[in-house]
Amino acid sequence: MEERLEIRLSGSGGQGLILAGIILAEAAILDGKNAVQSQSYGPEARGGASRAEVVISDEEIDYPKVTKPQVLLALTNEALNKFKDNLASDGIIIIDSSINKPDTPYKVIQLPIIETARDRIGKSMVANIVAVGVITALTKVVSREAVEKAVLNRVPKGTEELNKKALYAGFELGEQLS
Amino acid sequence: MEERLEIRLSGSGGQGLILAGIILAEAAILDGKNAVQSQSYGPEARGGASRAEVVISDEEIDYPKVTKPQVLLALTNEALNKFKDNLASDGIIIIDSSINKPDTPYKVIQLPIIETARDRIGKSMVANIVAVGVITALTKVVSREAVEKAVLNRVPKGTEELNKKALYAGFELGEQLS
Repeated sequence: MEERLEIRLSGSGGQGLILAGIILAEAAILDGKNAVQSQSYGPEARGGASRAEVVISDEEIDYPKVTKPQVLLALTNEALNKFKDNLASDGIIIIDSSINKPDTPYKVIQLPIIETARDRIGKSMVANIVAVGVITALTKVVSREAVEKAVLNRVPKGTEELNKKALYAGFELGEQLS
Repeated sequence: MEERLEIRLSGSGGQGLILAGIILAEAAILDGKNAVQSQSYGPEARGGASRAEVVISDEEIDYPKVTKPQVLLALTNEALNKFKDNLASDGIIIIDSSINKPDTPYKVIQLPIIETARDRIGKSMVANIVAVGVITALTKVVSREAVEKAVLNRVPKGTEELNKKALYAGFELGEQLS
């Protein structure tokens, strides 16, 4: 892993991307790293593409803003179009299967994240946790043990098993490609 | 209000301060402003004082980190001791009544935030929303209408009425002093 890794999670409001970002950040500290999780809102954010960002580093993080992410997750077309440019040169874009493949110089990985949440786990609202599993398996930015702990710490009481299943389904999706 | 306002919410993990920060940030955008909400984690964060931060501005926010907050909320002694220095010169510190009053050049406002949540609302876990109400009434950084909408958007389904009561109790606590 590089010393500083920037991740941008994008989609629509209500897809739980802030929670996904918090979970990745907390997993990173369980792994002994530093992390900042943030979301920026402007007046244009109402109704538009939403995003949550995570910076993970072995060092203290002085500049917490994501400028050139190594990893972009996009769960909607609108989010992809808004954020698909200006990744790091080795950046990867992870998109849901429901999204049109973009014309881009970056590596694009398309996976049935929302479908897996809806049809295999039975709740489309856990697509965020499936995505966390995908990112973990693909990028190894956090360990599976740490991310599982962070998921169980952070999801609402009573939904732990459901979310654990979603996480494992995400691991499986991601590891086919890693 | 100044052009840029920095708020630091501190306490222990599990007190819901990230959610409080997200609510303040979302209220700010409902008011037509820009906002960034973030939390930083280092290895020392495990078990220690936790914090969530919000920057609100009329302008676009280039530097999202809180360096000299105008408002510090502290819900535990440990958090107060960690964060009580380096506020803005006109900064205020809002502390829970359970905390020892610090020796500090800044204005200190002590209010029964946790007691109000526990004894008046009946759930100590809504202390975070009482605190959001206090900060809103005291600082007017966001409008009451916007913060109420943001609370109702963000709290778990089925807890809306409870959290609305907590918010209004916070307004009352804060307005006695504003």
